[in-house]
Amino acid sequence: MALIVQKYGGSSIANPERIKKVAKRIVATKRRGKQLVVVVSALGDTTDRLIKLANQVSDKPAEREIDMLVSTGEQISAALLAMAIQSLHSQAISFTGPQVGIVTDSSHTRARILSINTKRIREELKRDRIVIIAGFQGSDVKDNITTLGRGGSDLTAVALAGMLKAGCCEIYSDVEGVYTADPKIVPQARKLRALSYDEILEMASLGAQVLQNRAVEVAKKFNVPIRVRSSFSRGRGTLITREAKSMEKAVVSGVTLNKNEAKVSLRGVPDRPGIAARVFKTIADKDININMIIQNVGSRGISDISFTVMKGDLGKTLAVVKRVAKDIGARGVNFNEDIAKVSVVGVGMQSHPGIAARMFASLAAQGINIEMISTSEIKISCIIAKKHAEKAVRAIHAKFGLGRKK
Amino acid sequence: MALIVQKYGGSSIANPERIKKVAKRIVATKRRGKQLVVVVSALGDTTDRLIKLANQVSDKPAEREIDMLVSTGEQISAALLAMAIQSLHSQAISFTGPQVGIVTDSSHTRARILSINTKRIREELKRDRIVIIAGFQGSDVKDNITTLGRGGSDLTAVALAGMLKAGCCEIYSDVEGVYTADPKIVPQARKLRALSYDEILEMASLGAQVLQNRAVEVAKKFNVPIRVRSSFSRGRGTLITREAKSMEKAVVSGVTLNKNEAKVSLRGVPDRPGIAARVFKTIADKDININMIIQNVGSRGISDISFTVMKGDLGKTLAVVKRVAKDIGARGVNFNEDIAKVSVVGVGMQSHPGIAARMFASLAAQGINIEMISTSEIKISCIIAKKHAEKAVRAIHAKFGLGRKK
Repeated sequence: MALIVQKYGGSSIANPERIKKVAKRIVATKRRGKQLVVVVSALGDTTDRLIKLANQVSDKPAEREIDMLVSTGEQISAALLAMAIQSLHSQAISFTGPQVGIVTDSSHTRARILSINTKRIREELKRDRIVIIAGFQGSDVKDNITTLGRGGSDLTAVALAGMLKAGCCEIYSDVEGVYTADPKIVPQARKLRALSYDEILEMASLGAQVLQNRAVEVAKKFNVPIRVRSSFSRGRGTLITREAKSMEKAVVSGVTLNKNEAKVSLRGVPDRPGIAARVFKTIADKDININMIIQNVGSRGISDISFTVMKGDLGKTLAVVKRVAKDIGARGVNFNEDIAKVSVVGVGMQSHPGIAARMFASLAAQGINIEMISTSEIKISCIIAKKHAEKAVRAIHAKFGLGRKK
Repeated sequence: MALIVQKYGGSSIANPERIKKVAKRIVATKRRGKQLVVVVSALGDTTDRLIKLANQVSDKPAEREIDMLVSTGEQISAALLAMAIQSLHSQAISFTGPQVGIVTDSSHTRARILSINTKRIREELKRDRIVIIAGFQGSDVKDNITTLGRGGSDLTAVALAGMLKAGCCEIYSDVEGVYTADPKIVPQARKLRALSYDEILEMASLGAQVLQNRAVEVAKKFNVPIRVRSSFSRGRGTLITREAKSMEKAVVSGVTLNKNEAKVSLRGVPDRPGIAARVFKTIADKDININMIIQNVGSRGISDISFTVMKGDLGKTLAVVKRVAKDIGARGVNFNEDIAKVSVVGVGMQSHPGIAARMFASLAAQGINIEMISTSEIKISCIIAKKHAEKAVRAIHAKFGLGRKK
């Protein structure tokens, strides 16, 4: 019998009415002859509410206790969904992550899955039950409860699909699928029918928050097809696989926008070997992630180094960089928070030259200046002024003909 | 080092402010050189809120899933209290019931504790940590989460105190201790300094809802001293032990009132051997608990049988009794919901004759008619009309001189 793993996000089960709707959908799928494992997130804003409570009793709550606290959110969802399914006369049983043998390392609040013992799940599937599992959680070898970090329920679902050799992992949320651009910015944006793991990885990290990146990486490793779809409609959503066949013709899959980065520049850096390495090692030692880097080698033996970091890391970064600047004899440190990163993503572009040129041309036609550029095999990103961000996305989206056919 | 088990009820930790206050109290006790295991209930009305959610998704939620759902309440409390203690620079760690090896049978929503593996608790105590445990819960041998029924956190605390051979089990709530009568009815009611297990058992089952009965039974079995006290004051509360020495002089410990019972009478029952047995076996087979029973053997070979049941069981009881009445040829069935049970409780009365006579006299002096009487070694109960209930309690309380000295 075909096995499907489904995951329902917080908005899909935000209240009793929605839980009952999801239960109906699950039971209908079951009656079509599928075996079902369902992973759930916490109801609506439960996690935020719990974190708020934690901050009210402690300035700096220990991560082990945070995990103990927030893991209850998914447990509540799992129990309620099991009840709702049972009330439709279908058999269901709920489990916490630890109960179904999801063993992780001990990195609380961002644990990694080490192994899953699927024995209990297989037993319950054999009894023809729908198995409901609290997402986002597991336990370490000492039986402490751990959580997998933001979006961790996606990871639970995909990892279970991999271990159980499920035919598909369906990720339900309040969006219809993955779009060629954010429909709020580009009304003509088109839902993609298919996408590759690599493309979704670039899309997600660039701002289209559809799927947790680690979940996609695991899906890629185990070759689990993922279908991203809405729990509020019957749409087929977007299928994510190793190679998205229908993509062959399309060069670019989508345009993404990210406003969460800030740019930092070291001016007047002596152009000696090892200087860049020294700068970035010092930053990495502080656990700060660098996104884009460019170095302009200037005349007279000095250069400028610019890079972007997440805005939340900016303060920490400036403190480090100012110290380093002094040590290496740089002239000064600048920063700019009013930037945006616009990117085009597409597996097709690997074998199609001229994509970058077309992107730059469309920006130029709008009179938008490009401050930084970075490219990889499947994406090209430009840093521009924040005020031009939406205009840039629309221009590029139109230039590549990504919108719906009229 | 002396070990104390403390239990904090839902009202003691109803919000972040109260959790922080309780944390301070715990840390102060720790600094006086005690080892501490703390058991917590769910915050304020959490359990009711979760049950309401369950009823919104299902007409008849399965008990296994109810346990999965409501056990999160105590887990949340445990995590928050651990955080609050840590923020006072004391070491603490929280656990669920299953994590500390509380193994129960599989009777979901009313499970019985089978065993406790205290290894993990002892390890953490050795590391000088305050161990916080989610009350009310455990898991069965198949690792399903179970709960211990209403008031189950008391049971968790007392059972742990017994297994860990703690010096004392302190039960914190919003009451100062056990009183000679309900202070809302008798303003002169006095807090008792000490009480025996048997007395509190009679008091609790008669309406003074201070401690779960099963918890007292376990305390008696393991000879664990219990101190009932308030988390909102410094009062010493009431100490409950095998033999309350300070009770020697007092004959009666308290007066209790219970309005939750209804009286059922079978009239004109043929007075043959085995008839009463048949009546009560039929009722017991329906899982209905009988409280008081009296049988008036009348003349001409017929008698009346009266008994009381919980009001919630009245409908079920009447259905059964009417059938039985027909079978045995009884004349009819009466019932009365407007009754109250007033009782005096006291270990002292075992060796003091005349207590019953004084109680009846005080009721007679108020012109209150007694409908039923039952006595045991440490209590005497009278069923009277509900409208006289409070007046009766005050009269008896005064007659036995239980009030505060002026």
